[in-house]
This record gives sequence, structure tokens and C-alpha cells, in this order.
Amino acid sequence: MDSLKIILSFTLLVSLSSATSVVDFCVADFRFPVTPAGYPCKNTANLTVNDFVFSSLGVPGNTSNIFNLGVVPAFDVTFPALNGLGLSMVRLDLGVGGVVPIHSHRASELILVIEGTIIAGFIGSDNTPYYKTLNKGDIMIFPASLLHFQVNTGNSPATAFVSLNSASPGFQTTTFALAANDLPTDVIQQITLLDATQVKKLKTVFGGTN
Amino acid sequence: MDSLKIILSFTLLVSLSSATSVVDFCVADFRFPVTPAGYPCKNTANLTVNDFVFSSLGVPGNTSNIFNLGVVPAFDVTFPALNGLGLSMVRLDLGVGGVVPIHSHRASELILVIEGTIIAGFIGSDNTPYYKTLNKGDIMIFPASLLHFQVNTGNSPATAFVSLNSASPGFQTTTFALAANDLPTDVIQQITLLDATQVKKLKTVFGGTN
Amino acid sequence: MDSLKIILSFTLLVSLSSATSVVDFCVADFRFPVTPAGYPCKNTANLTVNDFVFSSLGVPGNTSNIFNLGVVPAFDVTFPALNGLGLSMVRLDLGVGGVVPIHSHRASELILVIEGTIIAGFIGSDNTPYYKTLNKGDIMIFPASLLHFQVNTGNSPATAFVSLNSASPGFQTTTFALAANDLPTDVIQQITLLDATQVKKLKTVFGGTN
Amino acid sequence: MDSLKIILSFTLLVSLSSATSVVDFCVADFRFPVTPAGYPCKNTANLTVNDFVFSSLGVPGNTSNIFNLGVVPAFDVTFPALNGLGLSMVRLDLGVGGVVPIHSHRASELILVIEGTIIAGFIGSDNTPYYKTLNKGDIMIFPASLLHFQVNTGNSPATAFVSLNSASPGFQTTTFALAANDLPTDVIQQITLLDATQVKKLKTVFGGTN
Amino acid sequence: MDSLKIILSFTLLVSLSSATSVVDFCVADFRFPVTPAGYPCKNTANLTVNDFVFSSLGVPGNTSNIFNLGVVPAFDVTFPALNGLGLSMVRLDLGVGGVVPIHSHRASELILVIEGTIIAGFIGSDNTPYYKTLNKGDIMIFPASLLHFQVNTGNSPATAFVSLNSASPGFQTTTFALAANDLPTDVIQQITLLDATQVKKLKTVFGGTN
Amino acid sequence: MDSLKIILSFTLLVSLSSATSVVDFCVADFRFPVTPAGYPCKNTANLTVNDFVFSSLGVPGNTSNIFNLGVVPAFDVTFPALNGLGLSMVRLDLGVGGVVPIHSHRASELILVIEGTIIAGFIGSDNTPYYKTLNKGDIMIFPASLLHFQVNTGNSPATAFVSLNSASPGFQTTTFALAANDLPTDVIQQITLLDATQVKKLKTVFGGTN
Repeated sequence: MDSLKIILSFTLLVSLSSATSVVDFCVADFRFPVTPAGYPCKNTANLTVNDFVFSSLGVPGNTSNIFNLGVVPAFDVTFPALNGLGLSMVRLDLGVGGVVPIHSHRASELILVIEGTIIAGFIGSDNTPYYKTLNKGDIMIFPASLLHFQVNTGNSPATAFVSLNSASPGFQTTTFALAANDLPTDVIQQITLLDATQVKKLKTVFGGTN
Repeated sequence: MDSLKIILSFTLLVSLSSATSVVDFCVADFRFPVTPAGYPCKNTANLTVNDFVFSSLGVPGNTSNIFNLGVVPAFDVTFPALNGLGLSMVRLDLGVGGVVPIHSHRASELILVIEGTIIAGFIGSDNTPYYKTLNKGDIMIFPASLLHFQVNTGNSPATAFVSLNSASPGFQTTTFALAANDLPTDVIQQITLLDATQVKKLKTVFGGTN
Repeated sequence: MDSLKIILSFTLLVSLSSATSVVDFCVADFRFPVTPAGYPCKNTANLTVNDFVFSSLGVPGNTSNIFNLGVVPAFDVTFPALNGLGLSMVRLDLGVGGVVPIHSHRASELILVIEGTIIAGFIGSDNTPYYKTLNKGDIMIFPASLLHFQVNTGNSPATAFVSLNSASPGFQTTTFALAANDLPTDVIQQITLLDATQVKKLKTVFGGTN
Repeated sequence: MDSLKIILSFTLLVSLSSATSVVDFCVADFRFPVTPAGYPCKNTANLTVNDFVFSSLGVPGNTSNIFNLGVVPAFDVTFPALNGLGLSMVRLDLGVGGVVPIHSHRASELILVIEGTIIAGFIGSDNTPYYKTLNKGDIMIFPASLLHFQVNTGNSPATAFVSLNSASPGFQTTTFALAANDLPTDVIQQITLLDATQVKKLKTVFGGTN
Repeated sequence: MDSLKIILSFTLLVSLSSATSVVDFCVADFRFPVTPAGYPCKNTANLTVNDFVFSSLGVPGNTSNIFNLGVVPAFDVTFPALNGLGLSMVRLDLGVGGVVPIHSHRASELILVIEGTIIAGFIGSDNTPYYKTLNKGDIMIFPASLLHFQVNTGNSPATAFVSLNSASPGFQTTTFALAANDLPTDVIQQITLLDATQVKKLKTVFGGTN
Repeated sequence: MDSLKIILSFTLLVSLSSATSVVDFCVADFRFPVTPAGYPCKNTANLTVNDFVFSSLGVPGNTSNIFNLGVVPAFDVTFPALNGLGLSMVRLDLGVGGVVPIHSHRASELILVIEGTIIAGFIGSDNTPYYKTLNKGDIMIFPASLLHFQVNTGNSPATAFVSLNSASPGFQTTTFALAANDLPTDVIQQITLLDATQVKKLKTVFGGTN
């Protein structure tokens, strides 16, 4: 019977048109340099479902640090299937009193509290602060580029997951940005109005020089 | 002393420039019609932090339906602060054997399994299926516009949260789209190659006519 | 006379600034991997007008298949000048009773009927179907990501051209996506509510297994 | 029986989530001012399939003018369903010797020749012209913003359809832009190097003054 | 003679198609609420060239403030023709020792030094600082969302103009964002590691409370 | 003491997440072909602040040409740090009577007059001209894709800087596009309605043939 052949020829036709399916997704190929739109794509013939699944968020991040904060990121560089798809996720574990220090990034962020009690807030470009205590199951939106923070104010550890609409959000943590490098203390003073002793103290904490 | 006045005059200046902060975020004002870019924005003077927090995802959705599925969406229409910010979230509760039927939407999606065991998968435009059993803590990416599904294959209820990079992703569930309306049975037959009896059976289940 | 020299020097200047003209267009160079924004560009020095013209749409596609449908695509992979320019075109030839089965893609589509009578329709994400008989000269818009279809309901062959606002729209034909692969029959049943016999029948038609 | 109720409750749930379907499409509501992203959307409850179909392209445009050219546009202002969807179409009828004068627009354009023989071309930003004789069934791509033109060089009328990836492409026809207004002749001379007599002659033809 | 009529009829035709020219530009109409894509557009019939020209940047900003800094912004709210066009400009006048304190915004920025000597710098999201002394005629690029600053290090006043690729860039000045509001001192301490005395000192300078 | 180790481990964590900082900026690496989104990025490890500063705009362009115009562009090809960041700048020096001939580009443009008196204008797609005399300190916006021009009408040299919201705007100067190539004179006549003698005269001036 000819119908099988017919179907096959149609399938070939469809395959031709769906050869464009290489851009359905674009698992990052790190052998090539990144572009402004992300990394070039791996050949789809070499992909399996495992490329699209990431399991590291199931384990808490290490909180043995000054902020009592564990961070496990699923960004393009750790989960290459996110490349080009405009989404990423981060697991946050905050010990009692743990802090996500004030920071910003070019993507917007939705936080989902899974466990514990967290004060979360952001600051508008007119300097208005919006902050509130979030409980398990609450979500809060942090608009792109605005400074924001989270603090575990409960008396037990807290866990949250944040989603961001970029595969590479570009986190910039304010105090790290100021103090974890060799930017001269007198320049930092001028551009922040912080006292020199305060700046030097931060540099000591964050490992900066000058 | 004059420095206070000086500061105030500077603050006024900065306030002028930051009057543009109305587009830092854009809480939807449903009194006006939506535009291709989302709803017009509420006056920022009337906003509080409560506009940016949404608590309905803390409670499981009702699973008393044919798919044993509870869905609680945080989209622009339910959580207006998402308007214009390109992110949304949905809580999924699946009873034992519960199913998120095959569907697609214009946004990409990241699923995070919070509880239980779920088979999740998507199908590329070259008809290749990518599916796998996900456990607690696993995340999986579903690229924009491609058909995908989730099934609770464990022997206890499952809960997951999905993030999408649109405030209004436009879910289209395939079998609903075919059978929950008055599209004539003979047309559905032609465009799907389903048998007429199968189409009529689906129409009965989903409340369609013709 | 000096004016020629002056002009030449000016032309050089303009050439420098217009060296950026490499992104006026970007004929795909398939020797490099695709990126999320499309293929890298061929050197413009090697291009001629023939790179920008495509003649395969002048000939009907082969309709000897189960859908009585001929498809000739002009996508980036077949017409590389489309790369990066956000447009593509497809010629559709439908024999009497011919069908473009229900499908979706990430781009929006405009159909233009050149010959014959076609029932065309799409289904909104609220499951509302919009369908109508189109005649020669009619155009209809199918919004991005929504399921849609076309059927030749006349008693002579029909021809149409569709334009899409992507160089690589990512066609996903619903029944192919379900049945032309090894997705297990019981999973398909669960996620579609189709009967097992119907699923197996489709798998036989479309060459799927399991 | 309870299953119907169950289905209905599920349908309500889905309806809620799909209330966002207002942005599946956005038929322009001209009672409100346009925005940078297009017109606000009509209430979907008032739409029928007729909003998505446009029939004026079936009739040739009037060619009784100096360019022997008929133009029938399907833009957002004439076919409001295109609003927000990033596509439009124009029918071109060219009498023998008919001309689409040199012009540009912010969208890219694909021309499809339906009847006749047309010389079509565009000019790169490095001043390289790309032009060729197109025959029935040929398509050619004109990259966004670059000057281009079409001339019927056959000895019978020609018809073509052009697709553009904007609902409102913003055609600017060069000679009209220069001469169909009151821009002073001496300024036009300076910015084009045309002779004053030539400028005045064009102004007479196109109805300009000064 | 008939050619004039012919031309007029063609002009009408072109006018119809160019009715879409309302989105060539979109001078903000502040009587309507802003949308995520900017303000609705004024009727073009009421516009003159004066809507597209802005003269306030010709005059230095007032530098009588704690930063010895004059700022004159040309944003959509002050120069409504910028609305929807993705560009803005700011004039900066820095007295001797004048400072643009560290800040960020969602747009990228190009600075052009017109007079004087300025140290300018930005900090990457990996905390690397990039800073340099700029002289008259130098330009420097500050990538979107990254912290950056400028300081007049010369012994005469300095003037610069910055261009940004947004009509509403959303400036957020770090120290203002922290201290010019009622965010509690203990929260600020936790999220910055600043000392309480330092925080209170900043609040005094910037007019914050708590 | 252990706190340093703790900080270091945290820093490593942050470094991992900020490995995505490669897309904070993307200095063009010209060893690879350009893509539709710009050039691939240089390794950030090899960058210094000098990559982000450009000094050629401090020197006037050479005005010894038929338009008495000096042009110094800062585009991605001359200032590679602009790649991917959506901004560029050009210095214009106009001798007495100097002219920026009528042209267009895909980006919008803001002109800033630094010295002298300039008539500047653009033409809407409905053929309305908007032009005005600009003085020192004035800025004017030219919307993307529309024809525009500048003429020094004062009795001393003029200098201006233009900003554009693309790293590669794609300048197309109308008379060059028509006459600085081998497009046949009779075709140019047809598509512009210019006289043959005028076309040939322009070709002589701009170095075209045919």
C-alpha cells in the first residue's frame, strides 16, 4: 500500500519546515563566545531530556558566611538549557537572622516563600520603600533594576525560590560592589557620603583594598 | 543653616527626574482597556506594598475535577502588580494520578517540584518528545509555544510552582480548545484525523456542542 | 580638479560609518551554530541580489499525502536572507478536501487566498473558535501561539500564501506532535483524554510507536 | 451525575486563568488614543470572526495616477485586527510601465509576484544596489529601513502582494517627502544637491509649494 | 488637465496608508495614564516643530547643593516628544569637586565631556571597577543597570551631557535610596553592613527618618 | 580567624552566579562574524577601562568635501564597547553653509548643538516637514526611519553631537543611495521622477555610473 510512503514523504516535508526547530530552544554551547543575545546553541541531535532538567535546587545552599545565606543559582552558566529562553531561578536558604543583602539586577524577580518568615522590600526610583513581612506561600514582585532585599526575621530557618525573567540576570550586590575591590576609599566617600572609617571597615569585611 | 535648603532643592530636582519612576512598575488599572503592552498604570500615589504581594498561592487549588488538578494562577488579572513586568506564577496541586493536560502558551515556563513525583515533558517542533520523572527540588524548562504536560505518577499528592516570563501567558489546553466549543465535529475530524465517535465523546466530556 | 578627491574622501568617511551596514541584513552562514537571535551573517562582500530572491514558491507543493496538502516553506533554512529580518512565507496547495491540520507556532500569520475556497479558523485561549469561509483575495490573521487550521471546502484545488513575522516560526502540528513519536500511549491518554484505541490508530497513521 | 459539575468548576477555573486571553489579540479600538505599542483593545466579548478577515485586497487598486500604480493597504487603521500583532499586507497593481516609487519604512518587507514581470531592488546603507527582474511566484526580501522600489517592466499589468512585519509600517516615499510639502526649495537644493529647476518641477508634480 | 486630479487621488491613497504615521512618533498626552510602553500619543494634527525641540539643556543646572551638582533632565515628562522613541538626555554641571553620586538605571548611558576633567567609572556585576579620568571630548559607555559615578577632579567647573536609550531611564541613586526615606535603621544595617551611626548620619543628611 | 574563609567562600558563590556578568556588556570581538544581535563578546578577563572610553570625538572631522561637513562616528565598528548596548554617538562639524544631507537610519536620534546655528528638520510619513533653527544648547529628536537633515545657516562654523539608540544605526544618505552606484539612469528616473540630465549630473558628483 502507498499510504505509508505518502506519510513518509509528508513527514520529510514537515521535517524540512521544522528544521527551524533549532530555535525552539538553544542549549548553550560554551565552546563558542557569548553574544549579546546569549550563547550559540548546541546541535539538537546531541540533546536529551536531561539537558532540560536541573536538580541542584533540591539541596540547601551553604549558609556558613557572614550573611547566614545560602544561594543556589540556576542561570544559563549552570543550567545551559535556560540560554535564550528568558527565565532563571535561584534557591535562597536563610538561617535565623539570615540576609540577602541589598542588590539589583536587570531582570524582574518573583519571590516565593516556601518556609519561614521573611521581611522583603524594594525601593522605587523616587526613594519610596515598599517592604512587608512575607509568610509561607506568599509571593512578591521586585521590578527590574530596583534595589531590593530579604531578611529572615523569624526564629527558624527560611527557604525561598526566586524566578527572574532573564537567563542571566546580572546580580549586583551594593556593598560588595562598593567594597570588594580596589576602588579608592576617597572616591567611595565622595560618591556615597560614607565616612572613610566606614568605607575601610567594609573593605576589610569584603576583602577590598585601597 | 543653608545646607538643608540645599538638600531640599536637590531633592526636588531629583524628584523631577524621577517622576519617570511611574514606569519602574505599572500596577494594572482595570478601568481602562488593555493595550498590546498591557494595562495602563495606576497612579503610584495610591499604591502600598500590599499591591506588590499576593497570598493566594499559599492555599492548594481545588482538585475536585476530571483531571484531579488544582490550579491557582498569579497573572496580571489576579495580581495586577505583574502588569508590564513580564513574569507570572501558577501553583499546581495534583492528586494521585492528577494531570496537567497537554497545553501551550506564548511564554516559556520553569516548573519547580515542591512535593511528590511528576512525569513532565514537552514536544519539540520536530515532534521529538522530551520527558522525565521529576522529584522534589527538580526544575525543568518548557520552551515557549511548545506543547507540554505534567502527570503525578507517585502514590501521594504532588505540588509544583511554575514561573512564566509573561504577566499573561495565554494558556491553551489542547483538548479543551478542540472540544469545549461548537467547532463542528466533521471539521475537527478533518484537522485532527480523530474519529467522529472520539470527537463526540470529548465534546460530551468538555461541554462542547455540534 | 580637486572635487573628485574631496568626494572620494567623503565617500570613505561614509563607508566607515556604513561599515555597520553588515546588520542592514544578515544572510545566514550555516557554517556557524545558530544563536538565540538567528545565524551569524555571511560576509556582505560575497553577496549578490540572488541571495535576496527565492523562486521555489512559484511551483505547487506535492499534495500526494494523507492531507492532500502541498507545503513549500521559505524559512531561514531554505531562504537564508530571511535570517534576522523577522519574516517568512509558505505556499500552501490544497487538493479538493485538502487540509492544513490544526497547528500553532510562535509567530503571527496572515493568510492570503489566491485560488479556491477555504474554511480557516483559530481558537482563542478561552476556547472560543473563530472560523469562516475565505474566498480568493481574502486575508485572515491568526494570532501568535493559537491553534489554527485551513480546509479546502470548494470543489477545485485551492492555493494560499501565508506570511509569518519570524524567519523561523516553529510549526507544531498537534496530531503529529502527539502521535509521530514514541510518547507512551497511556501518557497520551492521560494528557488528552483520548481513548487508547484512538491513540494507537493515530500512531499507526503518523508512524509513532509505543 | 457529578462529573458535569466537576467539569464546569474546572472550566471556570480555566476561564479565570484565560481571562488574560485579551492579549491573545487586540482588535484596535479607535475611540482611544494610540500608544507607542498600538491602539487599546476592543472588548473581546464584542468580536466575531469578521473582525479577523479583510476582503479589500481581492479588488485591484485604482491605477489612474502618475505612477500607474494601485495600492490597497491592510494596515491597523484599515484592518484593526492587525493591531499589536506585528504584521500587515499591501496589494500592488502596476499597469504597463507602472512604478512603486523609491521609498522606505521601519518594517522589513517580503514581496510576492502574482502576475507579470517586475524589476525590484533595494539599496544597502553602503550604497550598493541589489536589483533583479522578478517573475510570477518569485519572492524578494527588502530589509527594514532601506530604500527600495518596484517597476513593471513587462508588457502586461502586474500584481504583487507585500507582507510587512509591523501593523503600521510607516511608508515614506522619497520624492513625495521632498516635494509634496512646503519645504523651501533652497533647503531642498542644499540637502539633496538637486538643481532648483528640478526641485520646482517636482513640487509642481507633487503639489508642493515654496 | 487631469494629471492634477490623478495626483491628488494618489495622494489621498497614500495619506490613507500613511494614517499609520501616528506611530512615527508619539508626543506624550499626559491627560491619559501611562502604559508599560509609555504614554498615549497626542493627536498629530495639533503638533508643531516646537514639540520636537527642547531648549532647557542650554542653561547650567543649579549646583548649590551638597554634591555641587547641577542636573537638567530631558526625559519624557519634561520633553514629551521623547515618549516611545527610546532616547533621553541629561545635562550635568559639576562645580569644582562636584559629584554625581553612585547610581544605576535600566538604560545604558553614554557620557560626553564638554568641559573640564572628570573621573568616571562603573562596577561590573563581578565587582570589578572600571574607572578613568575623562577629558574634554571623551565619551564613555555605562552598561544598563550597573552602578556608576562621576567626580569633577579638575580645578575648574565641568560640564557633560549623557544620552540614555530610554525616554524614562529610572535613575536610582544608591545613598538616596537607602537614606532618604523611613526604611528602619536596623534593616539598613542588616542589608548593607553599615554601622548604625553611619546610617543615622546619612538619614540626617538626606532627610530620612527611623 | 574563620570569618575571612567564610567571606571567601561566599565570594566564590557570588562569583559563580555573576559569571553571567559576561552579558553586563559585550565588547565586540571582530574575529567572529556578526549576528543579528551584534558581534560575539571578547573575554572579559582581557578588558580594561580603556575598552569603554573613546577619544576620537574630541577632534573635529575633516570638512574638506562637497558638503563642508565633518563626521566622526562612534559606532560598534569604531568603539567596540557599544556592541549590544544600543547606543552610539556621532560628532558633526559643519563649516559655514555646511550640510548634513537628507538621510535616514533605523535608530532614533537626538541632536545637541554645541556651537553655531543650524536649521534641522525631519519629514513625517504623511509628508509633513518639521524644521526649525536650533541654537547652542538646543536638542531636537528625529524619530527612527524618517528622513531628516541639518544645515549650518549661521556665519560661523557649527558643531553638534548626535546620539542614536543603536550601536549600528545604518545611515542611508538619500542622494548617495541614488547616485553613488551603478543603478541605471532610466530606472532612477522612473522611481524618482527626476529628469535624466539631473540624474546624470548627480552621478557625476557622487561617482556613480550608468
